[in-house]
Order: sequence, then structure tokens, then C-alpha cells
Amino acid sequence: MTDSVDISGMTLDAIRATHAELGGDIIRTPSLPLRSALVSRMLDGGTVTLKMECFQHTGTFKARGALAVARSLDDDQRARGVTAASAGNHAIAAAWAARRVGASAKVVIQSNANPFRVAKAREENAEVVMKAPGAETFAEADRLVAEEGRFFIHPFEGLNTSLGTAGVGLEMMEDAGPLDAVVVSIGGGGLISGIAAAVKQINPGCAVYGVEPQGANSMSQSLHAGKPVHLDRVDTVADSLGAPMALPFGHALCSAYVDDIVQLDDDAICAGMVAFAQEAKLAVEPAAGAALAAVMGPLRERLAGRRVGVVVCGANIDAEGYLKLLSRGMAPFAAYSEG
Amino acid sequence: MTDSVDISGMTLDAIRATHAELGGDIIRTPSLPLRSALVSRMLDGGTVTLKMECFQHTGTFKARGALAVARSLDDDQRARGVTAASAGNHAIAAAWAARRVGASAKVVIQSNANPFRVAKAREENAEVVMKAPGAETFAEADRLVAEEGRFFIHPFEGLNTSLGTAGVGLEMMEDAGPLDAVVVSIGGGGLISGIAAAVKQINPGCAVYGVEPQGANSMSQSLHAGKPVHLDRVDTVADSLGAPMALPFGHALCSAYVDDIVQLDDDAICAGMVAFAQEAKLAVEPAAGAALAAVMGPLRERLAGRRVGVVVCGANIDAEGYLKLLSRGMAPFAAYSEG
Repeated sequence: MTDSVDISGMTLDAIRATHAELGGDIIRTPSLPLRSALVSRMLDGGTVTLKMECFQHTGTFKARGALAVARSLDDDQRARGVTAASAGNHAIAAAWAARRVGASAKVVIQSNANPFRVAKAREENAEVVMKAPGAETFAEADRLVAEEGRFFIHPFEGLNTSLGTAGVGLEMMEDAGPLDAVVVSIGGGGLISGIAAAVKQINPGCAVYGVEPQGANSMSQSLHAGKPVHLDRVDTVADSLGAPMALPFGHALCSAYVDDIVQLDDDAICAGMVAFAQEAKLAVEPAAGAALAAVMGPLRERLAGRRVGVVVCGANIDAEGYLKLLSRGMAPFAAYSEG
Repeated sequence: MTDSVDISGMTLDAIRATHAELGGDIIRTPSLPLRSALVSRMLDGGTVTLKMECFQHTGTFKARGALAVARSLDDDQRARGVTAASAGNHAIAAAWAARRVGASAKVVIQSNANPFRVAKAREENAEVVMKAPGAETFAEADRLVAEEGRFFIHPFEGLNTSLGTAGVGLEMMEDAGPLDAVVVSIGGGGLISGIAAAVKQINPGCAVYGVEPQGANSMSQSLHAGKPVHLDRVDTVADSLGAPMALPFGHALCSAYVDDIVQLDDDAICAGMVAFAQEAKLAVEPAAGAALAAVMGPLRERLAGRRVGVVVCGANIDAEGYLKLLSRGMAPFAAYSEG
């Protein structure tokens, strides 16, 4: 249960200290106003500021959490190297973070992962092991921990991970001007847990809204259940949001700091990608598209006239996959635009 | 002829003064490293920094030149308002600049212009007149000058325009770290004339390369001819680069400061758009795609191992047109990637 989880380490001082420590290794990504008459009209004059974390090292916010964890390793752990289990983006980030701290990385990537992401992990000098999605992938990472003594960098759960991702929220509060609300996509909850903790401790009046695919809604279910929920199956085009469960630390932070979570179907997520392309000039992956789709869709009335920060969490997608999802999003986007 | 044109006003002091005057009305757009293993491999370890002028007010660099001109108007000129003739982007910028200085704008846009751009011009409160492309469009603007006393903001020619666009070069020199070369797309030459003058006066050792569509190569032809050349016809997917002529001031600056201009066919330009989407996470219009396509193509050997700045000049394109050109660019991009 939530109240048995210790989130007391997630103070604003700790967030600021981690942010300062990561310092020059992390890009302070731009917070830029979205200049879109369409979105402005949809929000009755409300404004959107985009936190462009897609320009972070490794192409997603995941560099922040992974580096915060990698920096916490002692010399012995560092010498034995790290491992990770991932659909791609976290493997890239873990490999990148390992390289930054002088550790080796052997990462396990699901066999259905986008080849573009596998290539990126290899470019970070990681040894890549491909396994069937789900249990097999995690079992292989467990084996690497047991047999090679590697440190398992979790894709989304843990104090250091959330302290790392909290930097996104901290920078938004400092760079984006006063905000009434922040909108963040949710996979396992590593990103939103950090952002929400930073935002709410700096400005309790700023709402934090999460966005999940209908087919991967573990955090929504967990908040309703009052405890972390595992899903039987995951079904979404937003592969980066496909974590099959929430876990205690992330769930506890979300319980404490997230105002609400909305859900989207895949068509809406693809429409968000189209909106990013046409209105924001960004070619993003579906995980990021979801955040803008939520602004145009289920959050629209609540955000009317408000100053909204939208986190562009990542853009690791190959041209072919991008083109396909963009095509799918055209009609739903047109419906949004006219709606 | 070049030597009869007075470019003496284009000093570094004047460029800096204009940049300071435009100040807070212009966005200092980010200069961000392109983190692409593909492009890095293509350039034998060379680096690319993107000057993201697509995030400028109005979605293109044209806000800079238009505002520099609009600010130079006296009270009487301001009271009578401005006009412009354009395929879209300049009309948007002229309307925006007019609004910034409290002038009205009645702009003439070619009837074949992208409806997305026409809508954007209207969003800037411009009165929009649609005319057939070419002579009719310019004739209508002439009429508005003659009959309504409006000031004609030229789309690319003139000292103030080039002083405005020079800010792009100035910011790159200050923000992008040391560069060995800068790559800029050319329409009428308003952008590259300013950038080249700034770059070469700050760092004469930095090469400046222009990029033109084969079907709209007025500046290439003009440099070869030693005088501004008018084209009989223009044929390119890069509508923003479709100026049918170079003019004396821009031509003189290019003669003085541009090292070379390369040319691309439409397939290559579309491949550049794909490269932007996959490698740089940016959804840009073909005019911008051309610059990265030139880096991957005709400039590749010359840029090997170098530190290259690429100007992302704009991204005003609707989703439908974007999807179409992106599809067209897939095969040529794959050929580049493997080549």
C-alpha cells in the first residue's frame, strides 16, 4: 500500500542536488512556446509550452534517470558493469549512462523492439541480448545480475530514477514561465513521478496530469486500486508506454502528486503525432504524441484558458514506423481539428 | 554588376546593432547538436549543429528580415501599412512584423500557395489577396503600393532584410561553438546573404555553402554569370526556395561571402526531410530538408571530419503535404543511408 512506501527522500533539496550533480552531462532541453493558432483556439486562448526532452542525450528523458542511478554506483559495482531490460529506449539510456561513468553495459532488449533503437543501443557500445518480450527479457537480465554481478538499472522504479527525471520538472518550473498545468505521458511512471514531485513541491497550484494508452493503463488502474497493479496484457502503438505494471515507489509518488490520469486510444495517439508534426514542427514517437493528443482531447476543457506545459518525452522512431503512424493519425487529427 | 552595388552598410557593427534592436521581438532560436550516428558516420566523425530557426516567430527565419524592415518605417509609412508578395512564408512574416510595429498588412499570396500558410497569414490579422503565381502576384502588390501607399516589404532583397537575417549567423557563431562550415538553403538569397556576411566577418575561415533546388537555381546561375539572373521557369517541391530570380544586393553579398552553392533534385530534398524526421526529430518543410540533404549528398566529402552548422530555415507545412513529401523521400533516404 502507498503509505508503507518511503518517499521521504524525494525532497525538493534532493531533486535540486541531483540536478546539479548531473549538471553538464545532461542537456538542459529547451522549453519553447507552441505557436499554434489551432491549439490556442482549442484551448480558448490557453497556451502550451513544450519541454523538448526529445533533444536529450539518447533521444529521450531516460538518460536522466539512468545517469542518476549509474552515478550512484560504487567502484566495485561500476567495475562489474550494468544491465537493463527494455523495449529499447531505456536500454539506450542505460548504455549511455554506463559509458558516461566508465562501466560496461550488457542490455536485454525485447525481440519485437524497433531495430532503430537496437542500433542506437549498440552505438552506445552496449552488448545487446535479444529475448522474447516480457518474462524472458527480465529473466535474462536477472541472470546477468546473478551470474555476472551486473547492476540492474531499473527502467522506471526507484529513488534515484525519480530524482533524475525530476530535473525535467525543475527545469520547466524555471524556464517555462508560470504554468497552471503540466501534461506527461506515463509508461511505468518513472518520468511523471519525478516531474510531479518537483512541480508540486515548487508550485502546489500547478496541476499535473498523466496520459496513458487505454491498452497500457497500469498507473490509472493502480491509482484506482490504491496499490500497484500488474496488467495481464499490453496493447498499444506507443511501445515506450507499454510497461505492464506500476511499482510501489512510482505509484506512491503518483498517489501523492498526480492530479489525474486520462487515457487515449491508439488513433488519438497517432493524431497527437500529426499535431506535433504540423503544429510544433517535431517528429516524435507515439509516447510523446500522446501528451499533445490528451491536451486536444480528454484534457481540453480542463485546460481551457490555462498555461500548459507539455513534456515531449522522446522521439526514437525510424522513418518507416513514423510514416506509418503519421498516416494513421491523419483522419483522427482532422477530426480533432474540426471538433 | 556586383561591383556597382553598395554593400558597405553590411558591417559587423550594423549586424550587431540590428540584432540588438530586434532584441526581445525575435526568438534566439536554439543551436543544438545533431546526435545522429548515421550523419556522424557519413561525415567521418564530423559534427552537425542545427540552428533551429523553424522555432522562430511565424515558423521561419523570415520574421527577422521582415521585422528589420518594418522597424525602419517612419510614422507616415507605418500609418499607410505594408504589403508583400509571396508564396506564403514571407506574407506570414510581413503580416506578423506589421502587427508588431502597429501597421496594417494587405498581402498578396500566390493562388497555388499552401492553404496552411494562407491561414497563418490571416491569423496574423493580414488581409489576404490571392493572385496567380508570378507576375500577377507582384503586379497586385505594385498596385497596392501605388493606390494605397503601402510599403512593399521585399521577400528577400535589401540592406535591412539582410541585416535582419544576419542575426541567424551571428547567433550561430556565438551559440554553436567553433564551426568549420555553415550550410544554408537559398530561395531569393535573403537568408544566406545575411548569414554569410555575419559568418565571414566573424570567422573568415568558416566556409559558407548554399543549397538550391536544380529547378530553382537562380543564385547558382547568377554567381556563374557574374550578375543577377532571372529564370524562365521554376520547378521544385521546395516552394519556399522557388524565387525566380536573384537581385543585386543579395547577389553582391553572395559573391563576396559565399564559398559555393550546390544543387539538389526534388528526391534528394525529400530525403532530407526524412533525415530530419528520423535523425533530428524535426518535421520540416522541403526548404529546410534541402540543407541536410546537401550535407549527406553533394557536400559530404568536403564536410568530412568538419564541424558543420546547418540552418533549419522553416517548417510551415501542413500534415498532408508533409506526409506526401516524406513518403517520396523514403527510398532516396535509404539510398543515402547505405551510400
